[in-house]
Amino acid sequence: MKSIDLNCDLGESFGAWRMGDDDALLALVSSANIACGFHAGDPAIMQRTVESALAHGVAIGAHVSLPDLQGFGRREMAVSTAEAYSMTLYQIGALHAFAQAAGTRLGHMKPHGALYNMAARDRRLADALAQAVRDFDPRLRLVGLAGSALLEAGRAAGLEVVAEAFADRRYRADGSLQPRGEAGAVIEANDQAIAQAMAIAREGSVQAVDGSCLTLQADTLCLHGDGAHALSFARGLRAALQAAGIAIAAPGAVADAA
Amino acid sequence: MKSIDLNCDLGESFGAWRMGDDDALLALVSSANIACGFHAGDPAIMQRTVESALAHGVAIGAHVSLPDLQGFGRREMAVSTAEAYSMTLYQIGALHAFAQAAGTRLGHMKPHGALYNMAARDRRLADALAQAVRDFDPRLRLVGLAGSALLEAGRAAGLEVVAEAFADRRYRADGSLQPRGEAGAVIEANDQAIAQAMAIAREGSVQAVDGSCLTLQADTLCLHGDGAHALSFARGLRAALQAAGIAIAAPGAVADAA
Amino acid sequence: MKSIDLNCDLGESFGAWRMGDDDALLALVSSANIACGFHAGDPAIMQRTVESALAHGVAIGAHVSLPDLQGFGRREMAVSTAEAYSMTLYQIGALHAFAQAAGTRLGHMKPHGALYNMAARDRRLADALAQAVRDFDPRLRLVGLAGSALLEAGRAAGLEVVAEAFADRRYRADGSLQPRGEAGAVIEANDQAIAQAMAIAREGSVQAVDGSCLTLQADTLCLHGDGAHALSFARGLRAALQAAGIAIAAPGAVADAA
Amino acid sequence: MKSIDLNCDLGESFGAWRMGDDDALLALVSSANIACGFHAGDPAIMQRTVESALAHGVAIGAHVSLPDLQGFGRREMAVSTAEAYSMTLYQIGALHAFAQAAGTRLGHMKPHGALYNMAARDRRLADALAQAVRDFDPRLRLVGLAGSALLEAGRAAGLEVVAEAFADRRYRADGSLQPRGEAGAVIEANDQAIAQAMAIAREGSVQAVDGSCLTLQADTLCLHGDGAHALSFARGLRAALQAAGIAIAAPGAVADAA
Repeated sequence: MKSIDLNCDLGESFGAWRMGDDDALLALVSSANIACGFHAGDPAIMQRTVESALAHGVAIGAHVSLPDLQGFGRREMAVSTAEAYSMTLYQIGALHAFAQAAGTRLGHMKPHGALYNMAARDRRLADALAQAVRDFDPRLRLVGLAGSALLEAGRAAGLEVVAEAFADRRYRADGSLQPRGEAGAVIEANDQAIAQAMAIAREGSVQAVDGSCLTLQADTLCLHGDGAHALSFARGLRAALQAAGIAIAAPGAVADAA
Repeated sequence: MKSIDLNCDLGESFGAWRMGDDDALLALVSSANIACGFHAGDPAIMQRTVESALAHGVAIGAHVSLPDLQGFGRREMAVSTAEAYSMTLYQIGALHAFAQAAGTRLGHMKPHGALYNMAARDRRLADALAQAVRDFDPRLRLVGLAGSALLEAGRAAGLEVVAEAFADRRYRADGSLQPRGEAGAVIEANDQAIAQAMAIAREGSVQAVDGSCLTLQADTLCLHGDGAHALSFARGLRAALQAAGIAIAAPGAVADAA
Repeated sequence: MKSIDLNCDLGESFGAWRMGDDDALLALVSSANIACGFHAGDPAIMQRTVESALAHGVAIGAHVSLPDLQGFGRREMAVSTAEAYSMTLYQIGALHAFAQAAGTRLGHMKPHGALYNMAARDRRLADALAQAVRDFDPRLRLVGLAGSALLEAGRAAGLEVVAEAFADRRYRADGSLQPRGEAGAVIEANDQAIAQAMAIAREGSVQAVDGSCLTLQADTLCLHGDGAHALSFARGLRAALQAAGIAIAAPGAVADAA
Repeated sequence: MKSIDLNCDLGESFGAWRMGDDDALLALVSSANIACGFHAGDPAIMQRTVESALAHGVAIGAHVSLPDLQGFGRREMAVSTAEAYSMTLYQIGALHAFAQAAGTRLGHMKPHGALYNMAARDRRLADALAQAVRDFDPRLRLVGLAGSALLEAGRAAGLEVVAEAFADRRYRADGSLQPRGEAGAVIEANDQAIAQAMAIAREGSVQAVDGSCLTLQADTLCLHGDGAHALSFARGLRAALQAAGIAIAAPGAVADAA
């Protein structure tokens, strides 16, 4: 049976501030990327999010970010590869502690925001992130943009990689995402986004901006937690996947459980 | 053969700022308490400090603090026990990642500064810290002031506790430290501090401020890293201990190595 | 004509996180206490809030806090009076810059959260805050709990003080607030809170927890921005004040405008 | 009589960490760029630095930075122009408060580190900084790299600009600095740096890396505070300037005093 992972960014509240409807999303996804305090998430929120994901049977991973709370990790910063390596270890370890205390373990690492984009195109930075993951625990999967430098780095480091695709973003013919700033870069209509997700899940392909058909092997689809239609989109996508006989499961869910 | 641990706070630099002569101190102590980013220590410094301690054969532990970089963790804060629990897990986990990557593991947790003092007298707070340590790894030792609520909490949580004494601080008859603000609270003369340390190490006793003799069972002595005479004191104390036939070793060093 | 000020805490968003319905509240209050980056509010939010308050004709002041973003300034911290002095100057100055750029000026300073409570009872801390206000601009008013040490300190520093009362908090016979933790400390019913506000505004008195009648001269009433009924309460109170012929105006609104 | 300004970055300590020999440098410079809390400097240190500069008769300005304490403001960040504008206002205002309380006023703004470099080449960012300065106080001077976009932006905003040159950095033929990473980019020998400074101060020219003679009109020379030879270089430069009959004075020192 075919299967695909649905992942979502969670635990993005901070202190007195709330963000996202984590409980609703946990009922819809198979993997959660949990903020580790650098762009969002304080220790209390990390603890609660890990416990909540565990209760929902959702796989968890570290959502590692540049140190920029004010910018929510969305502003690129010129960090060195040594800095990227150590900040990745720090954040994975911090989240690991809550998993450990809750009697579970991390399954993956996915960089957040600007760090995700930087690691998608910069192989040296990507290597630093991959090596941090491997040096912490080589069983951790590395999640990154399908076709990106990050996945190459992960494979080179001997890690299992998880290729991510987006249901609601337009792709260019070279497999990169159309930048958010450009008109049409985000697919607003739920039915179009679901159609793109289904093409990816079923056929491993997506129609690029220029009309060409792009091969896109993806292991996981990213659900956004904060859009207006986030929940209705997620429910629609789940229904479409189930109707098509495609299981929703975290990578290695069967193997890990064994 | 009698033995005692010498511990020191390390990794207290941050970003571009340097503090302490870590390399010199690592040659003199048996245990290092490493800052975890809340009062000092950024990821790069934590990594370097762990690697350096490992190279020197010095046992490492997490030096967990209140979140107060500007105040260096020295200002008491009214944190809840739930907050204390989660911030302790976070910091232990962050440091653990560097130990894991370096192929070693943490041996202990010691709270820093204001958190140390608060946990010495507040049993509920102490319980939160002890439970965080136990939930992360019950093999970790909990270091606290000899006779403090923190050690009681550690024992209640089933942890091995390490009682700490100070060579250069005056004790009151009830075993508490004379507050730093008071005249004479800090022993400035190296020979007097060494004499107090030797009385603790050899006889398990110290002369209190009121002249009475206080029983003080201590497993570790704290060396300060930033005083003017820190290194000469440490060297003098080592010589005195060796002359008295007392080994300098981290708690459980033999057992852990086995 | 009798008048009273209605004040509210505003600009309490941070980065990507939203808090409070600032636009709705600005239509209802006469004074805004604007967060200065220590418990909430980043530069962009401060700028926007100052501009928005100015557009609504609402007087603005600095809502000065302990440095504790994660705890939203609600956790007491053992800061020295020198630290309190300098952090107050820093925050007032930061907010002043946005007022200056917008062509307006600050009218007051009100400490936030834990600092408010600490300065209400600790005269030395209160003196530090009052001196910072005076040293920045002696025309600034100092807002504090009616009957508190902060107002005494403000008068001693030669400042005009603004006594604050709460519509929805129970008072003890000595004029202090019943702590939030205790049952009944917060008045949940809008009509009861409005009744208490009207007693304060009209008669300068409030019924204490023990049933006694407490004299309470207040210049301003605090509206909370984040409660479920915040807006409906504010509208109800405005209507009641207008029906009673009591004007709603910032302290010195007429004098300042002259 | 010819004159030139000598400026230095000061107040770069933070919390318990010390950096630089501020007192020694204040005896040697005519202008101080004071950190405002974003890359260094906490409120207590800002207060002390302003008071100390005032006591030494040294002109003061805001050393505005990207929000990156851990990276000391040296890592470029992709901030928007709106963010740059508001963070500049925030920092100028915060420092202004200490000047105001000390009975003096700011004379200039100079961006720090990565922001300095970004604003030297990016005119839109430079405009944001210049507009923030002008909107706070159009009498403030804007300090930037001689020939940079920042100075163009300052002039366009109607500000008086101060062109900065470096005694110890190699220039390329186009007036830009040779990047630090390249061999020979920093002039280590004091006598060569003094010679370059004197050529700039006397003749308004400097020999570029390619041997060509570059015209370089500079109003101020930057002294580094943290190099090994910082103080001896500063003393040597002062002696050379005095021997050449060139006065050392902050820009507009005479006019401002009038």
